[in-house]
Amino acid sequence: MNLVGRPQTESGAAKWWGWGLESKTYPLDDKSQFWPFLLKTLKLRELVECPRVGIEDVKLPPSRLGNRTLTQLKRFAGAANVSAEKYDRLTHSLGRSYPDLLSLRRGVIRNPPDAVVYPNGEDQVEKLLAFARANRISIIPFGGGSSVVGGVEPIKRRGLKGAITLDLRRMNRVLEVDSVSLTAIVEAGISGPQLEDALNSKGFTLGHFPQSFQFSALGGWIATRSAGQQSTKYGKIEDMVECLTLISPSGRLDTKAVPASASGPELKELLIGSEGTLGVITKAKVRIRRLPEVRKYEGLMFKSFRDGIDAIRETMQNGLIPEMMRLSDPDETRISLMLSSEPREFIKSVTTKLGLWLLKRLGYLSPHACLMILANEGSQASVKAERNSALQACKRHRSFVIGSGVGETWAKERYELPYLRDVLLDHCILVDTLETATTWNKLETLHGAIKKAIQNAMSSMGVTGLAFCHVSHAYRDGASLYFTLVAPQVKGKEFQQWGRIKKAATDCIMRNGGTLSHHHGIGRDHAPWIRQELGNNGLELLKAMKRQLDPTGIMNPGKLLEFDR
Amino acid sequence: MNLVGRPQTESGAAKWWGWGLESKTYPLDDKSQFWPFLLKTLKLRELVECPRVGIEDVKLPPSRLGNRTLTQLKRFAGAANVSAEKYDRLTHSLGRSYPDLLSLRRGVIRNPPDAVVYPNGEDQVEKLLAFARANRISIIPFGGGSSVVGGVEPIKRRGLKGAITLDLRRMNRVLEVDSVSLTAIVEAGISGPQLEDALNSKGFTLGHFPQSFQFSALGGWIATRSAGQQSTKYGKIEDMVECLTLISPSGRLDTKAVPASASGPELKELLIGSEGTLGVITKAKVRIRRLPEVRKYEGLMFKSFRDGIDAIRETMQNGLIPEMMRLSDPDETRISLMLSSEPREFIKSVTTKLGLWLLKRLGYLSPHACLMILANEGSQASVKAERNSALQACKRHRSFVIGSGVGETWAKERYELPYLRDVLLDHCILVDTLETATTWNKLETLHGAIKKAIQNAMSSMGVTGLAFCHVSHAYRDGASLYFTLVAPQVKGKEFQQWGRIKKAATDCIMRNGGTLSHHHGIGRDHAPWIRQELGNNGLELLKAMKRQLDPTGIMNPGKLLEFDR
Repeated sequence: MNLVGRPQTESGAAKWWGWGLESKTYPLDDKSQFWPFLLKTLKLRELVECPRVGIEDVKLPPSRLGNRTLTQLKRFAGAANVSAEKYDRLTHSLGRSYPDLLSLRRGVIRNPPDAVVYPNGEDQVEKLLAFARANRISIIPFGGGSSVVGGVEPIKRRGLKGAITLDLRRMNRVLEVDSVSLTAIVEAGISGPQLEDALNSKGFTLGHFPQSFQFSALGGWIATRSAGQQSTKYGKIEDMVECLTLISPSGRLDTKAVPASASGPELKELLIGSEGTLGVITKAKVRIRRLPEVRKYEGLMFKSFRDGIDAIRETMQNGLIPEMMRLSDPDETRISLMLSSEPREFIKSVTTKLGLWLLKRLGYLSPHACLMILANEGSQASVKAERNSALQACKRHRSFVIGSGVGETWAKERYELPYLRDVLLDHCILVDTLETATTWNKLETLHGAIKKAIQNAMSSMGVTGLAFCHVSHAYRDGASLYFTLVAPQVKGKEFQQWGRIKKAATDCIMRNGGTLSHHHGIGRDHAPWIRQELGNNGLELLKAMKRQLDPTGIMNPGKLLEFDR
Repeated sequence: MNLVGRPQTESGAAKWWGWGLESKTYPLDDKSQFWPFLLKTLKLRELVECPRVGIEDVKLPPSRLGNRTLTQLKRFAGAANVSAEKYDRLTHSLGRSYPDLLSLRRGVIRNPPDAVVYPNGEDQVEKLLAFARANRISIIPFGGGSSVVGGVEPIKRRGLKGAITLDLRRMNRVLEVDSVSLTAIVEAGISGPQLEDALNSKGFTLGHFPQSFQFSALGGWIATRSAGQQSTKYGKIEDMVECLTLISPSGRLDTKAVPASASGPELKELLIGSEGTLGVITKAKVRIRRLPEVRKYEGLMFKSFRDGIDAIRETMQNGLIPEMMRLSDPDETRISLMLSSEPREFIKSVTTKLGLWLLKRLGYLSPHACLMILANEGSQASVKAERNSALQACKRHRSFVIGSGVGETWAKERYELPYLRDVLLDHCILVDTLETATTWNKLETLHGAIKKAIQNAMSSMGVTGLAFCHVSHAYRDGASLYFTLVAPQVKGKEFQQWGRIKKAATDCIMRNGGTLSHHHGIGRDHAPWIRQELGNNGLELLKAMKRQLDPTGIMNPGKLLEFDR
């Protein structure tokens, strides 16, 4: 049987100032319409350049940890696992949100960690936490560092004397694969590719592929309630975790390795999503699956957003669930089709143009048209049944199947788009993403409201921007909305501009029944809304848990919960 | 389209001393082999009688609440909603576990509530909790009262001056049905039949059918992490709850009505399974589904327990999930076939006998043979795909399909078996059930170990008993085990006998990687093992939550957590 593994990924040195590998950028050579379209849409006359500083021009505040402390750290963790060097501190100072990228590109780093420790086992983590608790030093757990909500910045807190980032990359082993129960015990610092390589080699997969896959880690996925692009079928990371280990300043928690339980509240669910504020997730037992026999991507066009939404909803509610139904709104549809690589060969080009002509004739290239990528994978039998069910629901809502090309391109380029952010930032263009989820009955209203809120916030600072969206991660009772926003930077007010858009969008989400975050987490950037999200008593309950597990407040301060400096 | 609703249920007065309706018992007329088999197996020469006391002989300790307190209660809740009468106190004094039934039948009631309040809205609950907190009176939330782990007994706690049971039966309205998102907002006191009747009349179902269905309530299901008999496909109650409202002594918590979220730990999961120890669950928004187009039950025989287990495991791991695969172990298989009603008509009887002869010839009636009930429901397409997938896995493990008869009988009689307990108790026979869940790699070992532990505990008190089991509630990574145990009572030591068996079985579960409870909950009876189940830090975390929401410890004392009187 020919099983389908994940595509190979490259490796190499990571950018300290942007997304992914130093050696990579987003290829625009074969997308000749992109810049003209963007200039026109953003009402810009020409592209300008916003250079970034070199690493030699980045100045970090000196480490607050004295030599004595560093020596002690080295005693716990081994000298090779402790660093207070500039490069280590710099590369652990921020995540990969838009404001983080702004700061990095300017070389203005307010909160680098005072040291970085790379523990290689749970006993080192336990000792470090005891040391940090006794010495009032904050601890920031760090997986891949790809947070887009400020989840890893070592924010200073009054009463704490320094900050140590715990980078878990050396705890990246697969400790056990149980091919009967289909589970694997894995250390939390393992990266997406490391995990999938290890599982694929035995015929298995976790099936968790967030867009950050190449540069994020299992522990980070769990700490932030991450969702992979196939979550519609496979569930979010919380559905994949059978049990986990958290080491908190008050001690160690091992939740029970059973498929389900009625032994009181589900402790696992209190630790998943804790964003490093309760302790360090050191390992998890995850539910794996056999590599699929078949994988199939295809594109469909709908005459309206509503048609596409209804098709997803009906599919989800009919019970046979495909891997992914990713529906772009009309604006994103236009951009997606434009960003699809232009075919290089004559024949393909003619076919494509004929196809586009046909789509136009049939009314599928109107300003309201929407693109859906449908993905199915699994056994021959399950793909057949699930694909049929989805296609029938789509057909009931006037879909037009445009074949596998656009779907396969999406799959091939799924991890590439974050690189485009760096290219846009090079040209002084703001680019950010935000996401939420709500029930089906509110989805279209919420979509329209967020779009308007973003556009208004952009206009209020005198620029014309663009916000487009897709529906992904569907459930029986609702779905998530994922927005991308692009606008010319307001020179000298880059942070304020971002803050105003973020506030407008988030206020709008909270007013219209969306969740504060569906899969990015809360971190630093969403924390101001957490009381509104959870309610007074909900937030107080979280704080009571925090007091129990982290009585001196050393764990990842300034994240998730409200924060007094 | 012909949709399949739930079977009609009767109504009438409930037994104060046993299961279900006064007017009903378990019919044994057409099961002529039952008593002879039981006498032989339990090595009893004859059936004896253990009569129960009449209600007039039950004496309750006087209410500890003075007239002034009762008057105040009536002011909050309305005079018609407050009772300190004997009947109300008696019928809220215990659940329906074996020791509870022993106490009821003897009329020895140690902990009746001092009053019963039937609130008819959330504001009454809020006022009552404030009053109880101020006056140090414990509050016991009460749904259907069907707990089999001592979940509703008003256990006394030092420092508390009385106990009020809050019976939620008057909060039983369906407040909203959203046919787009497929959700319903329902008050927690609604009973199973009331809820399904209301939903069925609009073409929907919740799909939650625990064996207690007829006499349990939504709030109780949520408070105990209940599993319905179709949980394999539909999930446990926690998967059906989109959000809920809990009124705690510290105030009200409304979790967010969204399909999924990454806004920190999942608060909903802290409240589901809280067993009334954190507050009163007053309503929930549940995920409903359309009534199935098709429902299909069928029976299969396997040559061994291992074959059947492997068939379930492979089905779960292949991705197309049936509603139920319920596999009896060899002992339960024998009893199930015997308890199947004997066909009354000649033709059926001949067919049955021919069938049995054939089964025997083929080796499916050996002492190792196991019966599976396979159930599928949903749309035509999903049933076809899911049934095929399950049948193929079964075939790979040498199953023999014995047709729909035994499956349909099971479905018809699924709520009847608890009535048999009362019949057995009438004849001085101990009968209890217990359940757990574990991962596939440990399932068979755990099954054997529990069986042995129970048998040993029975023998140690000089009686010969029987313990049989089925696998139900399957997951990708494991399944639950549900044991029924039957033994002659040890006269004068009935409680000790039960306690010794319970301890032996539970210690064995804990030693062999099972969960303390998969769907019955912890209550009073499992609380001694809760520290072992959750670990020190896990239990301390629960206690911290309890201190936050219930600082004076008035909510359902003696349940779930360890308990000092």
